[in-house]
Amino acid sequence: MEELAGAGSEAHVAVDDIEAFKQAFRRHAAGVAAVTAVTADGAPVGFTATSLASLAAVPPMATFNMSQVSSAWPAMTVGNYVVIHMLGPQTRHLAEKMAADHSERFVGDHWTPGPHGVPVLSDVTAWMVGKIIEIHPVHNNAVIVVQIETGALGTEDDALLYHERRYLTPGPPA
Amino acid sequence: MEELAGAGSEAHVAVDDIEAFKQAFRRHAAGVAAVTAVTADGAPVGFTATSLASLAAVPPMATFNMSQVSSAWPAMTVGNYVVIHMLGPQTRHLAEKMAADHSERFVGDHWTPGPHGVPVLSDVTAWMVGKIIEIHPVHNNAVIVVQIETGALGTEDDALLYHERRYLTPGPPA
Repeated sequence: MEELAGAGSEAHVAVDDIEAFKQAFRRHAAGVAAVTAVTADGAPVGFTATSLASLAAVPPMATFNMSQVSSAWPAMTVGNYVVIHMLGPQTRHLAEKMAADHSERFVGDHWTPGPHGVPVLSDVTAWMVGKIIEIHPVHNNAVIVVQIETGALGTEDDALLYHERRYLTPGPPA
Repeated sequence: MEELAGAGSEAHVAVDDIEAFKQAFRRHAAGVAAVTAVTADGAPVGFTATSLASLAAVPPMATFNMSQVSSAWPAMTVGNYVVIHMLGPQTRHLAEKMAADHSERFVGDHWTPGPHGVPVLSDVTAWMVGKIIEIHPVHNNAVIVVQIETGALGTEDDALLYHERRYLTPGPPA
């Protein structure tokens, strides 16, 4: 990584937009979630998401970002349902599974059909069922807005982080 | 926190939408960023964001969510600029400052005017300048889509997390 002067310094070195973006996000940590859905022809789809964010508490709404080339993209239609799973260290394997080849993501006994037939992954720390209420395509990607309808806590576990291309657990207070 | 059965279990107990949402997000960890901007009449505004997410790398785009009652909302207009700062344990005070009473957020020497006059906070781990390209209001909140134009690395520091209402540092591998 390049050595750049401190932010706010007169001497800071600007880099090109893509490099600046990559460098900055390398310094950002993200929680890890998994999103599942079912396509119109009944196929389970899903992916690992590090972009899950709360949008509002009342009514409860969340957003996540995704690529339109994702195997889950065909299931992203307004009115369709998703299940958003919070992952922990005990379900790191689910983060890897849901980021692996899409044909392998639902091969195994790590899920059961849940509300509206949407896969619920096993042993997650919490999950929420949400209805897709808005989809905002941006270039080849999209912002998905979901209104949460129900959910449950699951396994007692810590949170799972993704930072500098590694899965981590939360550490000591800052 | 209520004791609920394991996700994927027949015995899971559904809770109401808002409680499910709160419980689930309590189990999710988030990276901490600070967003700054300038209103049309030149006032610096900003807030602490735990919703920052990457949307695309090419072109580099990011999203964050905010309330329309935020003091920074008047600066959120398409074509206006923001600076997104990645915070670390050494700049935990900035996370607190930018979440404090809005009249106090720019009182002090913790920032300098940066590109387009937008405040750049000092000692952050990285910062990016972005142009607001889309604003999607949802109820009293909004999703902001930003295209990154430049940025720089700053102070060498760990990432800053927010989890279970505490600021944390990343810990050991999961």
